[in-house]
Amino acid sequence: MSSELMIEKLLVHDLRFPTSLSHDGSDAMHTDPDYSCAYVELHTNQDVKGCSLAFTLGQGTEVVVSGIKALEGLVVGRKTRDIFEDFANFWKSMTSHSQLRWIGPEKGVIHLATAAIVNALWDLWAKLEGKPLWRLLVEIPPEVLISTIDFTYISDVLSKDEALAMLKVGDNDQKEVRVQELLKSGYPAYTTQAGWLGYSAEKRKDLCLKFLKKGFKGFKIKVGQDLEDDKARCQQVRDVIGYDNDLMVDANQKWDVPEAIAWMKELAVFKPLWIEEPTSPDDIIGHSKIAQELKAYGIGVATGEMCANRVMFKQFLQSGGMDFCQIDACRIGGVNELLSIYLMANKFRVKVCPHAGGIGLCEMVQHLQMWDYVSVSRTMDGRSIEYVDQQHEHFKHPVVMQNACYLPPQVSHLSILFRYWSMRGTQKKITTPVKNQKMNIF
Amino acid sequence: MSSELMIEKLLVHDLRFPTSLSHDGSDAMHTDPDYSCAYVELHTNQDVKGCSLAFTLGQGTEVVVSGIKALEGLVVGRKTRDIFEDFANFWKSMTSHSQLRWIGPEKGVIHLATAAIVNALWDLWAKLEGKPLWRLLVEIPPEVLISTIDFTYISDVLSKDEALAMLKVGDNDQKEVRVQELLKSGYPAYTTQAGWLGYSAEKRKDLCLKFLKKGFKGFKIKVGQDLEDDKARCQQVRDVIGYDNDLMVDANQKWDVPEAIAWMKELAVFKPLWIEEPTSPDDIIGHSKIAQELKAYGIGVATGEMCANRVMFKQFLQSGGMDFCQIDACRIGGVNELLSIYLMANKFRVKVCPHAGGIGLCEMVQHLQMWDYVSVSRTMDGRSIEYVDQQHEHFKHPVVMQNACYLPPQVSHLSILFRYWSMRGTQKKITTPVKNQKMNIF
Repeated sequence: MSSELMIEKLLVHDLRFPTSLSHDGSDAMHTDPDYSCAYVELHTNQDVKGCSLAFTLGQGTEVVVSGIKALEGLVVGRKTRDIFEDFANFWKSMTSHSQLRWIGPEKGVIHLATAAIVNALWDLWAKLEGKPLWRLLVEIPPEVLISTIDFTYISDVLSKDEALAMLKVGDNDQKEVRVQELLKSGYPAYTTQAGWLGYSAEKRKDLCLKFLKKGFKGFKIKVGQDLEDDKARCQQVRDVIGYDNDLMVDANQKWDVPEAIAWMKELAVFKPLWIEEPTSPDDIIGHSKIAQELKAYGIGVATGEMCANRVMFKQFLQSGGMDFCQIDACRIGGVNELLSIYLMANKFRVKVCPHAGGIGLCEMVQHLQMWDYVSVSRTMDGRSIEYVDQQHEHFKHPVVMQNACYLPPQVSHLSILFRYWSMRGTQKKITTPVKNQKMNIF
Repeated sequence: MSSELMIEKLLVHDLRFPTSLSHDGSDAMHTDPDYSCAYVELHTNQDVKGCSLAFTLGQGTEVVVSGIKALEGLVVGRKTRDIFEDFANFWKSMTSHSQLRWIGPEKGVIHLATAAIVNALWDLWAKLEGKPLWRLLVEIPPEVLISTIDFTYISDVLSKDEALAMLKVGDNDQKEVRVQELLKSGYPAYTTQAGWLGYSAEKRKDLCLKFLKKGFKGFKIKVGQDLEDDKARCQQVRDVIGYDNDLMVDANQKWDVPEAIAWMKELAVFKPLWIEEPTSPDDIIGHSKIAQELKAYGIGVATGEMCANRVMFKQFLQSGGMDFCQIDACRIGGVNELLSIYLMANKFRVKVCPHAGGIGLCEMVQHLQMWDYVSVSRTMDGRSIEYVDQQHEHFKHPVVMQNACYLPPQVSHLSILFRYWSMRGTQKKITTPVKNQKMNIF
């Protein structure tokens, strides 16, 4: 009986991929990432399980695994009906646990751990409903969807009633037309593929040409290590993509506030659409200052992939420190909290352009962005999802691209299912050539 | 030879104390804390070791232990001379590690872990110099002390030169007079002892009387669970301590912004000096709003014990959201980062009144506050250190109180040495009556 479905067991796996070997993912602050994740499986007492992950950069994955295990007792043994029927309070029970909140609260390791578990629950819910997550989100009645969101600490900016009214507008306004549009054309993407700092000029040029040919109109490159080198790379990319396409630059938190402003004025001639993560992801006032100073140059400020939680997003949105809101699918506390951020961004008329790449981030975040188009913002104008053509091979249902657009997933879940898991309970280990870096599957 | 001293081994212990049995430490958000810590020992190749801890509330300590182990490779094998002679860069190597920073950066578990290790290094340095930490800080030349601080992300508000000038003023202005004053009279404390939410009215009254008799002039109680109950308890405490002593109230992040303002207006009649942690510790703009609204009532806003890092403190100070700055000795990245916060607070003329209690927090933070008095703010006016008369019995050198003041520690370290460690390498385990909560020593 589905009413008696319950979470019986939580398994968590530490998976590491030796991406630093080819400099994939290298930027000014993360020079040698080994893309990794803590992969969660929520097994039930029936033949269905929920899966998700928290993305990491190699070392430290084991700490996130430890965080997930610390939360295990809050989800194992629970009936799924009790969770989904009172999801906001369940979410709050995880993020406000009397003892565990001290090691957060709602930030860093314990929030990454929360995200992995919470998203696995949404994956399970989608499977139970037989829908891909984006369609589940689109088709849940607004009253039910709103009941999954914890408004604690954001009610001064977005009340539950206001959020519900927003969702009802989307629900009543030709929703099906947008669903059909999405199914036909997909959701636009931009690419970071050509922009990793560790790539050669030749590789960069080849990649720009490759993605131009695929129809991409947005290209992001990393900056911040050396100004002259940044100028040369901006010039090179502009030479290839021209000025009808978008160039975005990403400093990955390299600068202090005055340095960010000065450096970007130097790069303004290349007309970047945005500067991403110019300084500390915690510096709301700093981002706001940078945004003010760069407005005259037509450069927006983008941030969010390391923004800790909805309270931080609230303030970035309030203060004008975020012209482009770059949510990450698994840094903050999972889908429930992400919904609140989309709704706040909509209120402040800030465009959400999600962070993706890594391991499974493209697969996950597309669902949320598609829901936003159908049910909240009702436009794709000026919005796009980051795309990297790497690490999709691990998944049974990788993203499907067409004309530089993400096509809506058709399978009924969150798209996070590693293809390696053919046998439940078996254990494998693959050691890669990278010292101390193992691709573990167990 | 001391020049060849190096860190040979890092040991970390998960210690838990069953404080929830007697409701010690209970507040509106943390109803049943079991005071705990991750205790770090840095063993060297000589007969000296550095010790410190990260305070926790029970569950989750194991996650912090995992975080500490993740950082182990950055400190073990290092010569102490190399660390101390370039301490700011060493600190940055821990907080900006290319892979590990993803699970922070500089917040939550990984920053608690950083604090434990960094403070153990300061403990070691104090031992090598044969001085208690406060005296080491006071006697290090300003140029050397400044070299321990990483100014990344705060240079827009406090430059290295400005900070150095500040330290030189303190160094040249009758420093020895203040040292003597400190040695004679100590540093004022206020108490939270009577204020835990789980205590009976009788116990609360007895404790107020006990601490009045001891000379205390500041009393803090927890609020936020029930308004009528809060009024009754404020009234009771005022009846006992009168209006010549200070009453502070602490909501431990219970409220949203509008609720905080409304609730505190109801309690204004009891003339609290401050409302502590009225809302999310991440809500800079919210705190600023609350501070503005309560100014007319003479109520200040205090926060900081869960403030994630110097970037967050910077903004709280910039925005007027923090009338009292409540640093915690081991939440942010240890002494190095704390120094920068004291200097920023001094610049903004905000009083630092440290958070203490827990396990070892009184023992540690007194050193910093005493340094501030001698070398930075040069006044104790309106400042005091939180004090709780509990959990000191675990330490070989507990705090020494006299007339409601902390007396300067005389022994040469950070005061964090558990009395249980008599034999290196032995393993003991003490199981307490609390289910699943063990007092582990190993």
